[in-house]
Amino acid sequence: MNFLSDNAASPCPEVMAALVTAAPAAATGYDGDAISQQLDAAFAVLFGCPCTVLPVSTGTAANALALATMVPPYGAIVCHSQAHIHVDECGAPEFYTGGAKLLTVPGTAGKLTVAGIETALAGHRGDVHQVQIAALSLTQATEAGTVYTPDELAALAGHAKARGWRVHLDGARFANAVVQLGCHPADISWRAGVDVLSFGMIKNGGLLAEALVVFDPALVPGLRLRRKRAGQMPSKGRFQSAQLLAMIRDDVWLRNASLANNAAQSLAAAAGNRLMYPVEANELFLKLRPGEPARLRSAGFGFYDWGAVGSDEARFVIAWDTPPEAIGALAAMLSTGG
Amino acid sequence: MNFLSDNAASPCPEVMAALVTAAPAAATGYDGDAISQQLDAAFAVLFGCPCTVLPVSTGTAANALALATMVPPYGAIVCHSQAHIHVDECGAPEFYTGGAKLLTVPGTAGKLTVAGIETALAGHRGDVHQVQIAALSLTQATEAGTVYTPDELAALAGHAKARGWRVHLDGARFANAVVQLGCHPADISWRAGVDVLSFGMIKNGGLLAEALVVFDPALVPGLRLRRKRAGQMPSKGRFQSAQLLAMIRDDVWLRNASLANNAAQSLAAAAGNRLMYPVEANELFLKLRPGEPARLRSAGFGFYDWGAVGSDEARFVIAWDTPPEAIGALAAMLSTGG
Amino acid sequence: MNFLSDNAASPCPEVMAALVTAAPAAATGYDGDAISQQLDAAFAVLFGCPCTVLPVSTGTAANALALATMVPPYGAIVCHSQAHIHVDECGAPEFYTGGAKLLTVPGTAGKLTVAGIETALAGHRGDVHQVQIAALSLTQATEAGTVYTPDELAALAGHAKARGWRVHLDGARFANAVVQLGCHPADISWRAGVDVLSFGMIKNGGLLAEALVVFDPALVPGLRLRRKRAGQMPSKGRFQSAQLLAMIRDDVWLRNASLANNAAQSLAAAAGNRLMYPVEANELFLKLRPGEPARLRSAGFGFYDWGAVGSDEARFVIAWDTPPEAIGALAAMLSTGG
Amino acid sequence: MNFLSDNAASPCPEVMAALVTAAPAAATGYDGDAISQQLDAAFAVLFGCPCTVLPVSTGTAANALALATMVPPYGAIVCHSQAHIHVDECGAPEFYTGGAKLLTVPGTAGKLTVAGIETALAGHRGDVHQVQIAALSLTQATEAGTVYTPDELAALAGHAKARGWRVHLDGARFANAVVQLGCHPADISWRAGVDVLSFGMIKNGGLLAEALVVFDPALVPGLRLRRKRAGQMPSKGRFQSAQLLAMIRDDVWLRNASLANNAAQSLAAAAGNRLMYPVEANELFLKLRPGEPARLRSAGFGFYDWGAVGSDEARFVIAWDTPPEAIGALAAMLSTGG
Repeated sequence: MNFLSDNAASPCPEVMAALVTAAPAAATGYDGDAISQQLDAAFAVLFGCPCTVLPVSTGTAANALALATMVPPYGAIVCHSQAHIHVDECGAPEFYTGGAKLLTVPGTAGKLTVAGIETALAGHRGDVHQVQIAALSLTQATEAGTVYTPDELAALAGHAKARGWRVHLDGARFANAVVQLGCHPADISWRAGVDVLSFGMIKNGGLLAEALVVFDPALVPGLRLRRKRAGQMPSKGRFQSAQLLAMIRDDVWLRNASLANNAAQSLAAAAGNRLMYPVEANELFLKLRPGEPARLRSAGFGFYDWGAVGSDEARFVIAWDTPPEAIGALAAMLSTGG
Repeated sequence: MNFLSDNAASPCPEVMAALVTAAPAAATGYDGDAISQQLDAAFAVLFGCPCTVLPVSTGTAANALALATMVPPYGAIVCHSQAHIHVDECGAPEFYTGGAKLLTVPGTAGKLTVAGIETALAGHRGDVHQVQIAALSLTQATEAGTVYTPDELAALAGHAKARGWRVHLDGARFANAVVQLGCHPADISWRAGVDVLSFGMIKNGGLLAEALVVFDPALVPGLRLRRKRAGQMPSKGRFQSAQLLAMIRDDVWLRNASLANNAAQSLAAAAGNRLMYPVEANELFLKLRPGEPARLRSAGFGFYDWGAVGSDEARFVIAWDTPPEAIGALAAMLSTGG
Repeated sequence: MNFLSDNAASPCPEVMAALVTAAPAAATGYDGDAISQQLDAAFAVLFGCPCTVLPVSTGTAANALALATMVPPYGAIVCHSQAHIHVDECGAPEFYTGGAKLLTVPGTAGKLTVAGIETALAGHRGDVHQVQIAALSLTQATEAGTVYTPDELAALAGHAKARGWRVHLDGARFANAVVQLGCHPADISWRAGVDVLSFGMIKNGGLLAEALVVFDPALVPGLRLRRKRAGQMPSKGRFQSAQLLAMIRDDVWLRNASLANNAAQSLAAAAGNRLMYPVEANELFLKLRPGEPARLRSAGFGFYDWGAVGSDEARFVIAWDTPPEAIGALAAMLSTGG
Repeated sequence: MNFLSDNAASPCPEVMAALVTAAPAAATGYDGDAISQQLDAAFAVLFGCPCTVLPVSTGTAANALALATMVPPYGAIVCHSQAHIHVDECGAPEFYTGGAKLLTVPGTAGKLTVAGIETALAGHRGDVHQVQIAALSLTQATEAGTVYTPDELAALAGHAKARGWRVHLDGARFANAVVQLGCHPADISWRAGVDVLSFGMIKNGGLLAEALVVFDPALVPGLRLRRKRAGQMPSKGRFQSAQLLAMIRDDVWLRNASLANNAAQSLAAAAGNRLMYPVEANELFLKLRPGEPARLRSAGFGFYDWGAVGSDEARFVIAWDTPPEAIGALAAMLSTGG
């Protein structure tokens, strides 16, 4: 019973079907085919504003391309000290930007605050001897499975904009956040001040494509060229586009995220005071009891230790396709004391 | 009737089926799943030697990652002046290598020769004021639709090795070359001195995955890290691996390439003395007669002008799935004088 | 008798004196001292227009910083195929730009022409699959010891500007060109369309400082940051600034260049029909007679072979401080047949 | 009375004299002249072991070049969170390395400890999703004006070496540390495990040259090429070499550092319990009393505020040439309560 991650889940049927539909030979390659040509309009409807959508093969590529388009090589990106871009992408932002620096800021439960940013950057003078802060990168849902409210996001983005910084949103689990908030996707993207969104599809039932959603048209030309140059512009791009369109058609993305979020809530109820953070998406971070990790593993549950060695802290991730029986079994075990 | 390129062809049925087979959730992400774990062994059988196979999303990524692993930032790559890496990848090799230089060498019919390399590089001193040549990149089949013999490749690779250069093979149409030569794939890869092969699958019936085949194990650790850092290590990597395995199982790759090559031969016969180069793969380069390009387009044939404006030079590419009727129609039109 | 290069000449007395004057401790470091603060105004007078002057330690740094400020990583720089930036800077432009490409154009006697550029770039489509041309880099005096007229320069720069390219001038021997033309320095810099000039001082009697002269203020902020980041902003910057000011005060730079140019003219007269190119600066390129290179070396003259092995082509460079006796001896030997 | 920094001090007479001696034209440029050719042997005597010395124009260039030679683009450098390379070099290490990451570690009084490194890096897994730690960069004397003992340095370097990391020492104030410790320069460089030393000259009486001292010959070839490519290989290199040789001849470097260190000790005595850290080099960090900063500035003393706004923390730096009267005046004022 796999609670290690949502990143190896099955693609949902609609995505698989879309690949079949895209199979016949296209008239042109890259982004010129009829399917890819639908992307911008479809996402504009979804987000309620014009936007440009560029498919890429991974979330790491999405994040790094977005940041490289916003930040000069002598620039800096402000992000949470646990941000995926800092911790888990093997330096992709540094590579794509040509050597920009990530300035990390701590924050409770995976969240940044304006006050936290101000404190962490108090000593940053910003003169010619220092890197120039040029972007704020936020993660929604956060690395701690929590979710910024639209007001929290807007406050952070407003702080950035007032300083001339761009705003990037790493939305590897954007769908889970939208479901949790019950908001319009615009409320936690362009309306809150986000310039470029890495809209995660793969963890939520996709296959081999993520969506870069660009709300500021000024960023598009450079981004297209960087994407090509990075080897992120496949000749059979219609197969990426088809996945993205299948995910947003008929609210498939929201259905999938709801499945995962709801299961997470049932587990949260069972976990009780073991919860380290509120469960607002599809992840639980638990402070297990002594011996509990071993007992859970013996019972067949897979999950990651998360904190310091011996801390008994653990992460459980629920995917859109995690079997209800596995959820029930884990809930039962947690309810009865692990 | 599309002869523009083979890069928007349909995926072959075996590849589509492999995606379906890979659909169920995997135990682990990235390269850890059971399908991805089969790659190295399967390709070792195919090539007759141990190798490491890393899937990537595009040929551009394959080439640039290979070169970055071989060449320091202050290095140089020798390649044909028409090489895809120089002309059509928006500077991807420069990006991935951190700013290495491509030293281009002209050559008839898309081919390099040792003599041509020596002439072009005669003025390159290689002292501390100059970039350091560190790799030779060859293309097989070439950009002119021709094919190096195993002996020609071995001579070029031998020249490189004697100078301490690494050897990269851009095999976007490697399958077409193997079919043309009737040789073992080893004969034009590791046995000829190739260190890393960009083994093209997408043009030949694949979908969203190319294979980097690494014959020198010393290059593997750095390549793995660069691949991750480039955003080329998808979490659902099994869907890339499944495509690659489907292509090489039961000689699907050779069957597909044979379809395209054979059709190209029938067109070559029809084109007669319009041929600019021998037809040795799945591309024809024709010096058309005055007015012929317009007549062909009126008749519904799509193809690219290739030479200088007004030269009436044109490129026709045949894919594995180009309909026989289209082949027949084009052959008929060429036979009767365009 | 050293005719190898002007790059190891002695500094002129005015430069040495300026170092002594700058010796007392300054109130502040970097560019904040009283001497460095004079740079912009002094060069504005010299060039007859506002400009920003940033000292750097080498011509390579000057060129690469200028280009990096003008060209994105996915960009390209058009330059002569013999340009120093392409041939002799170990890939510095690629390093500083983050991997831009140099597109080289051949040209007689070291000079580019608009027609030559158009021919060489005829096949460059400039779509998303290709690097984006963003700058033209010219060399004045050229690598062949020739000099563009103001009209020639303006035509080339105008061609660039009409296409949205920036214009860089590598003026390692800018002084020699100004002397030769008898023009105002503005005539072959900003007035002709140059955005940034690498104003060479070191070969012409300087010591350890070159001047980056920036005519477009929009380029200045990024250039300052790149200069710092490159380790090209010394804390005792006053010693660089002092050298630059000493060179332009009282026309020292013109005096020095005149010494070298005049000597070159006397040698040109002696060389007669051995001259490969017109002598318009302080370099002679000679097609020597069989046996002549050896005879000259036996007689104590140092110079570089320049063309293919066995071609008997040779380069002779005259510095501002080349002893008149050495000039006379070489002229005599050339006059009498080498 | 300037206590802002030692970075705008006057060059010492020996350095100025060396420039004059180097003035006559050299036979060859770059590093080929007779003066530059003395460097390796002279420093080998100084350090008691073979080494290669490469002059560069700034400390930033020295540090960044050293790190780029040690660390791949996907690598990481462990350093103190206040390290100059992280805080004050505008991202030079990221630029030169091609985007490596600096992993910062806090530490009391500017010093790292093995335990501190282990704690800070406890969460660093080092798998393919993360940057690969490849070097430890230490600063001696530290940013807090303290000095590692040879044993402390050896323990840190030993920790690094045991993990396969390279060791870099930022010795912008290396001379002050040697004087303080009364040790052989080898004791806090190669004998302690340092691979490359950025040997600071400029703050200690130099002018426009720092020394990169390379103890591991395997690093030299790459470093030479990176130095050229960075525009850090001046054609009149003899003027950099002459400065370096003048500094180490007759222990000038130790004499200069002693002047500064001794003055710092007399000020430390006057500062009493205002001292935030032990004074072990030429810098004082003081927790001044309320109102004291203003009073000191009124009395004509220049210095930097150092901590949070309103903290009354301040840094005073003494240079080799700080006038004794200024030292005396400051000591008197501090003794009497500021």
